[in-house]
Amino acid sequence: MADSSLSLAPALERIRAEIDVLLGELLTVPQDPRAQLYEAMRHAAIGGGKRLRPLLVVAACGLFHTARERALRVGAAVECVHVYSLIHDDLPAMDDDDLRRGKPTVHKAYDEATAILAGDSLHALAFEILADEKTHEDPFVRAELVGELARAAGPAGMAGGQMMDLAAAEADLDLSAVTRLQQLKTGALIGFCLEAGAIMGRVPIEGRTRLRGYARDVGLAFQIADDLLDEEGEEEKIGKKVGKDRARGKETFVSLLGRERARRQAELLVEQAVFYLQSYGAEADLLRAIARFAVERDH
Amino acid sequence: MADSSLSLAPALERIRAEIDVLLGELLTVPQDPRAQLYEAMRHAAIGGGKRLRPLLVVAACGLFHTARERALRVGAAVECVHVYSLIHDDLPAMDDDDLRRGKPTVHKAYDEATAILAGDSLHALAFEILADEKTHEDPFVRAELVGELARAAGPAGMAGGQMMDLAAAEADLDLSAVTRLQQLKTGALIGFCLEAGAIMGRVPIEGRTRLRGYARDVGLAFQIADDLLDEEGEEEKIGKKVGKDRARGKETFVSLLGRERARRQAELLVEQAVFYLQSYGAEADLLRAIARFAVERDH
Repeated sequence: MADSSLSLAPALERIRAEIDVLLGELLTVPQDPRAQLYEAMRHAAIGGGKRLRPLLVVAACGLFHTARERALRVGAAVECVHVYSLIHDDLPAMDDDDLRRGKPTVHKAYDEATAILAGDSLHALAFEILADEKTHEDPFVRAELVGELARAAGPAGMAGGQMMDLAAAEADLDLSAVTRLQQLKTGALIGFCLEAGAIMGRVPIEGRTRLRGYARDVGLAFQIADDLLDEEGEEEKIGKKVGKDRARGKETFVSLLGRERARRQAELLVEQAVFYLQSYGAEADLLRAIARFAVERDH
Repeated sequence: MADSSLSLAPALERIRAEIDVLLGELLTVPQDPRAQLYEAMRHAAIGGGKRLRPLLVVAACGLFHTARERALRVGAAVECVHVYSLIHDDLPAMDDDDLRRGKPTVHKAYDEATAILAGDSLHALAFEILADEKTHEDPFVRAELVGELARAAGPAGMAGGQMMDLAAAEADLDLSAVTRLQQLKTGALIGFCLEAGAIMGRVPIEGRTRLRGYARDVGLAFQIADDLLDEEGEEEKIGKKVGKDRARGKETFVSLLGRERARRQAELLVEQAVFYLQSYGAEADLLRAIARFAVERDH
């Protein structure tokens, strides 16, 4: 049987360094009045974050023997979308946060206009990366990656989930509504990470069911863990303000289930996610370790 | 010799209707808490605007006999990017405008958070449209369209130009700086419209020089005409506030050249743009008419 007790720390450390190098190359600061825009993009995108999404892409690509430098490009594209969404979500008109990944948010370090444009620029960069033949020699693969990421990021995915989240402050959501909200807000992009592995590996649609099951369960487990951290975690470790959801009267998995049931639910989801991988051998160990990390982390 | 006195009015009317139908189909409002997001996208994207960019795409595609419904999809994608940029530029943290295309801006009709998300959603939708095989059966064409639009929209294009524009309020720009700013802010996306025609028609890079020359000159002429309208135009016809640049002390082509020289410069650019089309016959009449419209319009 494959060893599934793999520690994730070295894998996370490695990918953090790799993504920083890649984004550093892609975001060379020009010597013209756009310099501040690029600096703001670098401030938000480089040197912070768990890089969980790029790691998921690399892990999924690992199942199908995709070259690591290609998987990293797709991981960087997902991270660009994730970071753009954080920049925009942190704006005063949205969640109004001052701290992100242990640093001032972009509108605090620069200004709101720069933050809006830095988010928009990272959003465009994500698709520029995917469309480049360095990402995959087969244009069919590149076009499919673009289509899936656009769907996952747009109104039927992440942006739609964020809209539901804004509306949620004024509504009493039940468990199924919160689940649906989170499946869009964070689940869609996590789903893309796994789908990207299958696309890069040219796995036909009908062969992707297990990976989609894994993505759905890990995505929800990850969100429940986030809700628990928002209640119990340490601001210093997480790098952002905690206790926000409760203060705003927003329903979360924890407010609806209580801490104990929420924790058990997250653990059940992780078991289920790992179960989806049972036909894979050691090549899926990284995905198994990520599933466990999703609920065991303290940040 | 081809008739180049073609009136643009029927072509503009036709494309306005077609783009409204296409975007209307793409933006069906869901019966869930995301409804407001889709309504805000529709408010901004449907039933307004000159649709000059879609018309440029259709006109460029017309040189190479691309099916109109495919050209319209690419035109709709460019328009999504253009509209998203208007929504974000109108935000209080940016240009702080209340009126756009004769209607309240999105953050006035809804709220700032919805406006940010509606812009982000239209941005993602643009790439979803291009990546879809309905746009072109050749995935190489789709991937190239995505890469070019991402570059034109991102920090090396439109978003970079908008950053320069924000910085311009505090700097005394000269003519070459204003030209460079506008080449990014509005020229890059107009350049994409023409490039898209060549991409859809599978014209190799070395065959695109004349179209790029046309795009560069028409883009600048269009911007000079915009600056003139901002000084001389009627708010009611233009559908947005006029006299803003002067009030903010921003240098424009008009402030740097004076009205007369600016007008002559725009006319020269249009002549030059039309000259680039000399090897084409009647199939380029629409492009010729658009070049003239760029400087003769009153809105």
